[in-house]
Amino acid sequence: MTKRLKPRVVILGGGFGGIATARALGNDADITVVDRHNYQTFLPLLYQVSTAGLAADHVAYPIRGVLRSFNGKFRMGSPISVDHKNKTVKLDSSEVLPFDHLVIAVGSVTADFGTPGVSEFGLGMKSIHEALAIRAEVMRRFEDLCRFEDDTRLSLVVVGGGPTGVEMAGALAELVRGPLMNDQKHAAKHIDVYLIEAGPRLLPSFSPSLSEKTKVSLENLGVKVLVNTAVKEVKHREIELRDGKSIPAEVTVWAAGVKGAPVIENLSLPLDGNRLSVYPTLAVTNYPYIWGVGDICGAKSKDGRFLPMVAPVAMQQGRFVADQILRREKGVELKDFKYKDKGSMATIGRHKAVVEVNKIKFSGYPAWATWLFLHLFYLMGGRNRIGTIADWCWNYVTFDRGNRHIMDSM
Amino acid sequence: MTKRLKPRVVILGGGFGGIATARALGNDADITVVDRHNYQTFLPLLYQVSTAGLAADHVAYPIRGVLRSFNGKFRMGSPISVDHKNKTVKLDSSEVLPFDHLVIAVGSVTADFGTPGVSEFGLGMKSIHEALAIRAEVMRRFEDLCRFEDDTRLSLVVVGGGPTGVEMAGALAELVRGPLMNDQKHAAKHIDVYLIEAGPRLLPSFSPSLSEKTKVSLENLGVKVLVNTAVKEVKHREIELRDGKSIPAEVTVWAAGVKGAPVIENLSLPLDGNRLSVYPTLAVTNYPYIWGVGDICGAKSKDGRFLPMVAPVAMQQGRFVADQILRREKGVELKDFKYKDKGSMATIGRHKAVVEVNKIKFSGYPAWATWLFLHLFYLMGGRNRIGTIADWCWNYVTFDRGNRHIMDSM
Repeated sequence: MTKRLKPRVVILGGGFGGIATARALGNDADITVVDRHNYQTFLPLLYQVSTAGLAADHVAYPIRGVLRSFNGKFRMGSPISVDHKNKTVKLDSSEVLPFDHLVIAVGSVTADFGTPGVSEFGLGMKSIHEALAIRAEVMRRFEDLCRFEDDTRLSLVVVGGGPTGVEMAGALAELVRGPLMNDQKHAAKHIDVYLIEAGPRLLPSFSPSLSEKTKVSLENLGVKVLVNTAVKEVKHREIELRDGKSIPAEVTVWAAGVKGAPVIENLSLPLDGNRLSVYPTLAVTNYPYIWGVGDICGAKSKDGRFLPMVAPVAMQQGRFVADQILRREKGVELKDFKYKDKGSMATIGRHKAVVEVNKIKFSGYPAWATWLFLHLFYLMGGRNRIGTIADWCWNYVTFDRGNRHIMDSM
Repeated sequence: MTKRLKPRVVILGGGFGGIATARALGNDADITVVDRHNYQTFLPLLYQVSTAGLAADHVAYPIRGVLRSFNGKFRMGSPISVDHKNKTVKLDSSEVLPFDHLVIAVGSVTADFGTPGVSEFGLGMKSIHEALAIRAEVMRRFEDLCRFEDDTRLSLVVVGGGPTGVEMAGALAELVRGPLMNDQKHAAKHIDVYLIEAGPRLLPSFSPSLSEKTKVSLENLGVKVLVNTAVKEVKHREIELRDGKSIPAEVTVWAAGVKGAPVIENLSLPLDGNRLSVYPTLAVTNYPYIWGVGDICGAKSKDGRFLPMVAPVAMQQGRFVADQILRREKGVELKDFKYKDKGSMATIGRHKAVVEVNKIKFSGYPAWATWLFLHLFYLMGGRNRIGTIADWCWNYVTFDRGNRHIMDSM
């Protein structure tokens, strides 16, 4: 029997991690990417779809389009089991894919931390469908409000003061102050945007001075920022707080956290919490030919804490695992993964953002310009970049948001 | 009592006809537009959404955006009854809108002419939801096909040889020959695109020479064109023809005809078939303060035939009715509506289209350029124009279609 020329690599998940792995392997492996969607979602810009700033199609990119240049294969589906003896993975389409290496990059889902009512009355921010649901819900409630010319108010609440919640709250406030004010002034003046954070400050992973700047910027946009405010239960049109008070909430956006995707439970692999238990090499504990990448990967930093569930970690791990696979194929010793933190950023609104890179901190216009440049740079596909630039220029010049369509129903 | 300064005009329907009426009335009336969507749909480009050429959000435009400049009001909802004594219209939101003039421009829906199975197994082309359903169905069937490396074939059938059917079939064929071929060659080579027309030729409203050119162009793109072929029944994965034969049809797009929107039946007004019975002034028979505009308006040409259900008729009627309303308010005599036919066109594919203006006929590149220019010119809103140009340039230069996302499910 002759040796197979290229290792067969099956990559579960076509997000930042899975696609980075595939791109880095390129022609050096026989690649099959598996995802339940036929497109990659550019998650960091989903909040702009929710708030009518970007077209839904422009934060998605067909996975097959990425794989073309190196003849990678794609299968639409979800994994239902792994046969370790025969080294195959079975999909819900009944297909059985043989592999030499299996890369698991199935990502994360919204975590409610056991808070009652989140799945019933809260809207997550993890998929294009959820983003369109938020957009439709906000615009529909606004249309309802437009019928009244009285004191009826509408309350939009974002739970979670991390970057996602901050960006969402800022974009909602700008939607209300700009386009909705032009649509119907009386109604727009009766909309409240809340941002609720359980901890003592917004953006806890940033330095306190930037947290404070963020709070002030959001408040200047009209956002009611509540810190040290834990949610006890999300109810119909209301959020009950742990201190016994409650606030009205016609729309609740839940941006309070994420956890490893539950599909991982199908694969009977060792877990660490709800993430994959991995060695520092990113090989799954006891499974030298299975690798963890991105949000689902339970890799830890030197201080023993899980790495954050963000795109840069996933992309670095993807490229790293591609390299590890080729090392193992060549019989070369494996390396240990080290995350190179290139800093964090969050945008708050027009000309307002915060950036923190090691000891360097900056905010305001320069931070906003940096954010803009980096997001366009990382946006995949020329078409999306052009379309996004077009929408952004339009929004910037006109102070309008053109995608205010309610498209979630017939 | 002082005379009301401006007439209250309620416009039912925010399509080409309703919006044209509102724009033409502008500040001369107190306008309320009612539509079940909060956006206008640019129907002539829907087939490009179905075939992954354009982003769904770019063929929609928020109705409130149009009404801003003259402080027009908008209500999201559908009419459920008209109270002629008090001159009010009731909406399904329970609101009651008083009017001095009522403009009915509720448009049309897909007509199946009694053919069994169309609503169960056929996909219409009258809304963004239907367009996204076609896109998802085609792409999902393609993904299914990619699992097989055998002789399994996939059959996409367009029923109806009018401009909509021709444009749809041409765009589907280009999607298959270009992007899908690049995605997975074996699968793309096993896709058949059919165009079925019951009559003896495609584009029956054009001259026979252009019909023939259209047929040849489509066949060159790989479309199997069947004329004199009437559909008896649409079934699961199959279309039964009236001659007893049948053709496979995993996806059936029904572009065989439209009829007046059934919502008109709520209003207890005189009908002519399923359109409003109107005088040549476009006032509804016996109702001097109610007007018909667009597809729902049963206006006829000199030869006694209904005017075609196309955007130019609706827009001309909208502007005309705005003028009639102001004439009636001033006590000036009404005019009779005359449709000024500016010609018809249909695009077949890259550099291929047919245009017919009175005796002038042309096809090929000049027709295609004309089509492109006119569609961009009529596309509402600068943002949509920029976004559409961006997508079109991208598609043109790369021969790709970037919006191949399956977005109809979670």
